[in-house]
Amino acid sequence: MTFQAIVELHPRPTGVDRGALLRCIEDCLDCGASCTACADASLGESDVQEMVRVIRLCADCADACDATGRIVARQTAPDLELMRAMIRACSAACLACADECERHAAHHEHCRVCAEVCRRCKQACDELLTKIG
Amino acid sequence: MTFQAIVELHPRPTGVDRGALLRCIEDCLDCGASCTACADASLGESDVQEMVRVIRLCADCADACDATGRIVARQTAPDLELMRAMIRACSAACLACADECERHAAHHEHCRVCAEVCRRCKQACDELLTKIG
Amino acid sequence: MTFQAIVELHPRPTGVDRGALLRCIEDCLDCGASCTACADASLGESDVQEMVRVIRLCADCADACDATGRIVARQTAPDLELMRAMIRACSAACLACADECERHAAHHEHCRVCAEVCRRCKQACDELLTKIG
Amino acid sequence: MTFQAIVELHPRPTGVDRGALLRCIEDCLDCGASCTACADASLGESDVQEMVRVIRLCADCADACDATGRIVARQTAPDLELMRAMIRACSAACLACADECERHAAHHEHCRVCAEVCRRCKQACDELLTKIG
Repeated sequence: MTFQAIVELHPRPTGVDRGALLRCIEDCLDCGASCTACADASLGESDVQEMVRVIRLCADCADACDATGRIVARQTAPDLELMRAMIRACSAACLACADECERHAAHHEHCRVCAEVCRRCKQACDELLTKIG
Repeated sequence: MTFQAIVELHPRPTGVDRGALLRCIEDCLDCGASCTACADASLGESDVQEMVRVIRLCADCADACDATGRIVARQTAPDLELMRAMIRACSAACLACADECERHAAHHEHCRVCAEVCRRCKQACDELLTKIG
Repeated sequence: MTFQAIVELHPRPTGVDRGALLRCIEDCLDCGASCTACADASLGESDVQEMVRVIRLCADCADACDATGRIVARQTAPDLELMRAMIRACSAACLACADECERHAAHHEHCRVCAEVCRRCKQACDELLTKIG
Repeated sequence: MTFQAIVELHPRPTGVDRGALLRCIEDCLDCGASCTACADASLGESDVQEMVRVIRLCADCADACDATGRIVARQTAPDLELMRAMIRACSAACLACADECERHAAHHEHCRVCAEVCRRCKQACDELLTKIG
């Protein structure tokens, strides 16, 4: 993706580990889109009645990831406490969504894949948290 | 606003204090729009060079409030840890943005008003947190 | 809502009819939150299988309204063609969502109310379009 | 990105050209994040006074791309007129943002790269429009 080049061209980088930052942004984008698509695929399943909680938590996780990806992508004059709290919220959303998707992984492949993306995004959030101090 | 009637018509309310819930959603909507408008007004000021941090934190706060308003407005099968973490992130965003806007309150009325909205939204978030347990 | 005061305090207003502008922003906020809440209430209904298209179109309409509310709230150096295209998209989303919600108005009060909010938001969008020329 | 696998696992695909759909979603994600990062990099430049319109149009384009990426990623029971209007709005946002970024391409590399991403996203939107009919 090209956004990484733009993040790297920032005139006043914050000093936060660049690799951890880029991984977190990319995983937030991928997880946000994956959760939007998994909520929609779950809504299209014939057993939608069983998928209610997946649909709800995927919607939450998409909202958390999209907002976090935006906030983490900004390097100008950040507030670190705001940033940490947001990354923690994203990590919590990914965990809740991964756990619920996993319960449906055996019969819905899109849930199995979505759980994986959520776990990877949680890990990228947790790793970035250790770099922000 | 009409959205409140729809929140009240939910077939399976979660048992969370309804008043605190509605105040949090409404304040998130108002604060999100206020921060978008204050970032934009600050961008239009002749002393924009002095407003860089206001613009950045208003953008963050708008993203946090909009995502939190959506998540809090959902009552079906919630994950309370996700919800708490998100409300905490919103509270942190409102605090950071209010503090920065306040520094410009004397010379930019829109910053003075925006700081007030952020403080009110933070309070609504903090109150809702005490009700979710 | 307080955001209106901030919109009115913009240092370089665009000359677009202020009343039509404020109505459009407020209706986008209300409609966005209403559609998020109606999608969620529909997801919580025992006849969720019948509500699939409501849930999908409410999600679309919430995304369109939230993005349009943000774009319309900005008055600094706008691109009018971008703004018109976005307001037209919001109007189309409100129309599609209102029509679908109306089909469920008789048995789900939240859909009846949501259809009304969508129609009002569509009208505010259409009125603003006539003022941007 | 993994979201593509989830889009391909949808139980009831809409029949819209899958390749054009996936390109549009991916370019919306990349362009949304690129515009958020370019607005932020521009805000951090010492000549921020000259960058006001870039910052504004990048913010608009990020909002349009993020909303469009979500709507296009949903395949369950779509409304094609809504979808077309949204993709047209995204195309208009990308065009306006690309033109403005290009004016700063010679002295700010992030604007040069962002203009390219916007043009690619506009093309993906326009191509998808020809497939939805």
